[in-house]
Amino acid sequence: MGNCCDAVCGFFGRQKNTNVRVSLPAVCFVWQIAMIILFGVFIRYDEESDAHWAEHKRDHNITSDIENDFYFRYPSFQDVHVMIFIGFGFLMTFLKRYSFGGVGFNFLIASFGLQWALLMQGWFHSLDHTTGKIYIGVESLINADFCCAGSLIAYGALLGKVSPVQLMVVTLFGITLFAVEEYIILTLLHCRDAGGSMVIHAFGGYYGLAISWVLYRPNLHLSKRLNGSVYHSDVFAMIGTLYLWMFWPSFNSAITDHGDGQHRAAINTYLALAASVLTTVAISSMSQKRGKLDMVHIQNATLAGGVAMGTAAEFMITPYGSLIVGFCCGIISTFGYLFVTPFLEKYLKLQDTCGVHNLHAVPGMLGGFIGAIVAAAATESVYSKEGLINTFDFEGDFANRSVGTQGGYQAAGTCVAIAFGLVGGAIVGFILKFPIWGDPADDNCYDDEVYWEVPEEEESIPPVLEYNNHMIHKHQEISESNFSVEQS
Amino acid sequence: MGNCCDAVCGFFGRQKNTNVRVSLPAVCFVWQIAMIILFGVFIRYDEESDAHWAEHKRDHNITSDIENDFYFRYPSFQDVHVMIFIGFGFLMTFLKRYSFGGVGFNFLIASFGLQWALLMQGWFHSLDHTTGKIYIGVESLINADFCCAGSLIAYGALLGKVSPVQLMVVTLFGITLFAVEEYIILTLLHCRDAGGSMVIHAFGGYYGLAISWVLYRPNLHLSKRLNGSVYHSDVFAMIGTLYLWMFWPSFNSAITDHGDGQHRAAINTYLALAASVLTTVAISSMSQKRGKLDMVHIQNATLAGGVAMGTAAEFMITPYGSLIVGFCCGIISTFGYLFVTPFLEKYLKLQDTCGVHNLHAVPGMLGGFIGAIVAAAATESVYSKEGLINTFDFEGDFANRSVGTQGGYQAAGTCVAIAFGLVGGAIVGFILKFPIWGDPADDNCYDDEVYWEVPEEEESIPPVLEYNNHMIHKHQEISESNFSVEQS
Amino acid sequence: MGNCCDAVCGFFGRQKNTNVRVSLPAVCFVWQIAMIILFGVFIRYDEESDAHWAEHKRDHNITSDIENDFYFRYPSFQDVHVMIFIGFGFLMTFLKRYSFGGVGFNFLIASFGLQWALLMQGWFHSLDHTTGKIYIGVESLINADFCCAGSLIAYGALLGKVSPVQLMVVTLFGITLFAVEEYIILTLLHCRDAGGSMVIHAFGGYYGLAISWVLYRPNLHLSKRLNGSVYHSDVFAMIGTLYLWMFWPSFNSAITDHGDGQHRAAINTYLALAASVLTTVAISSMSQKRGKLDMVHIQNATLAGGVAMGTAAEFMITPYGSLIVGFCCGIISTFGYLFVTPFLEKYLKLQDTCGVHNLHAVPGMLGGFIGAIVAAAATESVYSKEGLINTFDFEGDFANRSVGTQGGYQAAGTCVAIAFGLVGGAIVGFILKFPIWGDPADDNCYDDEVYWEVPEEEESIPPVLEYNNHMIHKHQEISESNFSVEQS
Repeated sequence: MGNCCDAVCGFFGRQKNTNVRVSLPAVCFVWQIAMIILFGVFIRYDEESDAHWAEHKRDHNITSDIENDFYFRYPSFQDVHVMIFIGFGFLMTFLKRYSFGGVGFNFLIASFGLQWALLMQGWFHSLDHTTGKIYIGVESLINADFCCAGSLIAYGALLGKVSPVQLMVVTLFGITLFAVEEYIILTLLHCRDAGGSMVIHAFGGYYGLAISWVLYRPNLHLSKRLNGSVYHSDVFAMIGTLYLWMFWPSFNSAITDHGDGQHRAAINTYLALAASVLTTVAISSMSQKRGKLDMVHIQNATLAGGVAMGTAAEFMITPYGSLIVGFCCGIISTFGYLFVTPFLEKYLKLQDTCGVHNLHAVPGMLGGFIGAIVAAAATESVYSKEGLINTFDFEGDFANRSVGTQGGYQAAGTCVAIAFGLVGGAIVGFILKFPIWGDPADDNCYDDEVYWEVPEEEESIPPVLEYNNHMIHKHQEISESNFSVEQS
Repeated sequence: MGNCCDAVCGFFGRQKNTNVRVSLPAVCFVWQIAMIILFGVFIRYDEESDAHWAEHKRDHNITSDIENDFYFRYPSFQDVHVMIFIGFGFLMTFLKRYSFGGVGFNFLIASFGLQWALLMQGWFHSLDHTTGKIYIGVESLINADFCCAGSLIAYGALLGKVSPVQLMVVTLFGITLFAVEEYIILTLLHCRDAGGSMVIHAFGGYYGLAISWVLYRPNLHLSKRLNGSVYHSDVFAMIGTLYLWMFWPSFNSAITDHGDGQHRAAINTYLALAASVLTTVAISSMSQKRGKLDMVHIQNATLAGGVAMGTAAEFMITPYGSLIVGFCCGIISTFGYLFVTPFLEKYLKLQDTCGVHNLHAVPGMLGGFIGAIVAAAATESVYSKEGLINTFDFEGDFANRSVGTQGGYQAAGTCVAIAFGLVGGAIVGFILKFPIWGDPADDNCYDDEVYWEVPEEEESIPPVLEYNNHMIHKHQEISESNFSVEQS
Repeated sequence: MGNCCDAVCGFFGRQKNTNVRVSLPAVCFVWQIAMIILFGVFIRYDEESDAHWAEHKRDHNITSDIENDFYFRYPSFQDVHVMIFIGFGFLMTFLKRYSFGGVGFNFLIASFGLQWALLMQGWFHSLDHTTGKIYIGVESLINADFCCAGSLIAYGALLGKVSPVQLMVVTLFGITLFAVEEYIILTLLHCRDAGGSMVIHAFGGYYGLAISWVLYRPNLHLSKRLNGSVYHSDVFAMIGTLYLWMFWPSFNSAITDHGDGQHRAAINTYLALAASVLTTVAISSMSQKRGKLDMVHIQNATLAGGVAMGTAAEFMITPYGSLIVGFCCGIISTFGYLFVTPFLEKYLKLQDTCGVHNLHAVPGMLGGFIGAIVAAAATESVYSKEGLINTFDFEGDFANRSVGTQGGYQAAGTCVAIAFGLVGGAIVGFILKFPIWGDPADDNCYDDEVYWEVPEEEESIPPVLEYNNHMIHKHQEISESNFSVEQS
């Protein structure tokens, strides 16, 4: 059997060298040193985190330290931070032998991504042209975490099939593309997208799918034995699911307007998520023999309501409107896992490990259009005159924009996000096809052994070996006794 | 052996059909649609989450957005949210083969429960009779999470023995009963119970116990092989324990008065919990041969101090008073696990999977009486005149109530909570006895296989199978050689 | 084999009695009762958590409840609390059979430690000499958690080799020593050390190392089979790692100045930690065949940046300065795991289970000196006059201290912390050598069986046993058939 296995490995893995001992350290060092230099040139504390705050406070008649933006946003920031590192990380531990890679590479690329995001978003959104500096505060940290989320979503489609070096490339380009599309959507088109249905989820989802499509592996079935969960890996994944689910209200409200904006976004997201759970359970149960629930659905589709509320959460969508969004998206997402993912794999040659198509791409796109509709339906009687201006930021150049126009731009923004994801992902996918990145062979995917020192198996094995010896011993006795019988 | 097993299954499971393929989706859909309709009719944003906030702020001379209730309560809300979904959920993953059900059904029923709670609590506490609407904000979300806690506690007593459809029924009635008893205790009797010793823990505990008593399973010993933990399931359960333990100060302070009320409740709870840990360890160690600790005690009884401080945490119980409460409750709860749970099971026919009697019912009841005593002992010198009025809300109709009277009402409130739990639970238990809910047979409890698609066993099995083949192969050789020997 | 094992156990374990059935409960009860009495004598609510807050507010012209310190610090407090109980606890679950001890004893000693810390820190820092009372609020709770951290770090060096009674002793003395060195460093030397590079990490690290050195076990190799991880225990440990990593910005900012101080400390720590991850991955990959990553490095060295920013985080170290600190400390810490820990064990007879030398001792010491340098380099133009006074607290007796002098005192403070750790640890180590504490024999370390009721092995074993029976059955058939052949 050993020979046969070697032959198979040799055949499919011939050109694959998964040794990253040079490339991974090189990428980490070069990029980290680049970050230090660029931060040295560009990044400074903003007026709320600088030691001049006491003067700033006096100059601006701020009466109390509690009005520092830190106290408005830091609790939400930490919730978002948990979503990025625990939420996304543990959601990807569900595979039986890729938990290290799921949580570990997520940790690596998010840590790199947030630094690059501070620079990219800074250049586009908060570069002070007088001083040439970017000034950062707690809101910048939240935005950097958001920016990483796009690339982490893309990782979901690629999970188990790429090397850490490839992931660093995915992140470098992902953050860059994110900053550009975000600039176009939020600044040029003047869309609102506080929770990032468009800029994070639709973009990130389609970005990952396009990469995965280019990197199609025809013989991935050779790794099929590892493309599944075991009992405890599913429980680990539930940690990820629940943290994403619980803190999604913080995600969607983290950078909305102070006061009613944050308050309303949290309520709407909370309700949409609750409704998603019930419809996910319903569809999952309907789809299986004897009504058994499938952990894949519970781990993923329950979150669709949060994704779809990313744009509309800060609007006056009404509590029952939020429930309806969650209701529909739970159904759509679960159907996606049941029918669309297998269809994509079979007919479109698209291998999507975590099903980001159903959890991020489609609900994100829907969220963008829901936002467009809710924006177009806004009225002064519902929002109050001042509330309408605050919510949609109808100020400056956009003071005279009508809600209908705003709705149109929101829809256009969604399309921009998808286009960036698809085109950008295809290009990055082609870059990743060069045979220099140390990715695994088709029969070697979903396996931590490739990039991690994995501890030996559980103690539960020694008894088996012991029994083995015992049986062999018994055998000898038996055959000896046979002999003796025969000889007698 | 297969035949024997089939016969046993056939005998005990004859009338049991665990297929929930129709009932579970039906319940989820019908109830979620009902929620949408009722939310459409009744639920609106309150003035702090509505886009009219800017006007409201101006009208009420509120100088800064930071005075929006969101910033007072959102961090505590998120801590409570984590307790509900991670804390209660993971605490129930300790069984070796019911971790999916523990965390997954907890997720399902809490998601439904919080929607129904917003309506029920809204009708009783915040229905605006002019407009016929319920206005919700962050405090409503906390209260909805609290309301769910009662039903999740009841789930602890039923864990592994009921179907998800039954749990939905338990939650529907649990939330309803909760809202009524809460209205009686907090509004009519004008008790204080910020952390819910009475309304949440005593009610929820006795509610679950009464249901479990009615659903007594005489042949549950047939599932005994699965009614226990394995090494890693105990570690998962510690995640639940620790999140409950760490965030209990937020639980007890989440809806207390702004300022000193929240501050004091957090300190008192923190201290009581710390003391509980030491006495739990002491009793657990004393009770076992060689002083070994029992994970069941560490996972549960360490939390008793938090339960028992639910009422008194916001009062001036003093720091050492909090320590004394934690000290006693850690002892009582651990003794409960050692002696009372086995007694209840043997003599009262009461099967209590997680021991909610010792963690919620008794400490909750004690917490109610501790609150009564501390209230009755309040003096103006300790609280200040203004502080006494604020803490006990002696305003309006209750302006002239004495602290002694308040103490009496607090004690009465505890009795009301217990009575609601016992009577309500008994009724719900009888409803659940109808043979239509898809509950498992006595020899089929504590098993995720019944309601979940469970992944195949760990990789540790293939070597065994391989060895199996190998042995069979060897056998053939041996017997062939025997033959050849004989033939020669 | 059984006999041989018994003989070995008998030989090495002769004088070892791990029965803690008397000592552990005795210590818990006596110390908890002592806490209650001392709290009764000394501890009271401070003016922000007392019911007199309404009066205090009026007297001090405080306009809103939101200016209660609770709202400035409670979110950070809860993050720190999670680090202490989940972070430190789960980081120590990585051993294959010591997860109960890792998370459980951490829970026990932190719960005791925080009570004793409130008293010790109170006596040194906030004893009101008029009333003889200590007044506590949310900042006291954070400080108590910090104080525990020192002893929990020491536990990291001792993990698996000591009894819970010994750990209680380690904690009692650890908290006491901490309070004294903290008083010397923060009050007498007037150092700044908000995140505790010196007072927490350098002290705690060297304290644990000194104890471990005194308790050197020459035959520890007999427990080698258990001194390692299994797949899922490494995933559990990642929970600890990630919570420490994510919430370290809260740790370093929890007790810094309101406003810019907290804001800046969070940003600096966030950046340093991100840089640590990249250099840790780089060095870990470089050090292994085929560039495979080692979980030990990822679990620990990624945190070094947070440790090293403990002093300087609140200073104007600049964002790129933070990146440089993280960059260097990730490298140093990973090299420590690769070369220094084996060296210490081989040549200095120092067994350091979790490698606290590399994660806490050295980065903490470096953090102290980094703080000294940054303090000495402070200028009025960077900080503003007012900012400089606020940041370094140049008031009262210290109004005329120069930044250069401050830098010198910071460096001296680091040396004081290390000296306290080494000398205190050596003394406590000798106390722990008395043969009365129930510690395990050399061949019995890293094993939960000693102090915990451990559940039986996983279900994965029954199939093996079944197969066993099956094979024996087959055997009989075969040998019977042999017989019949022979007999015919």
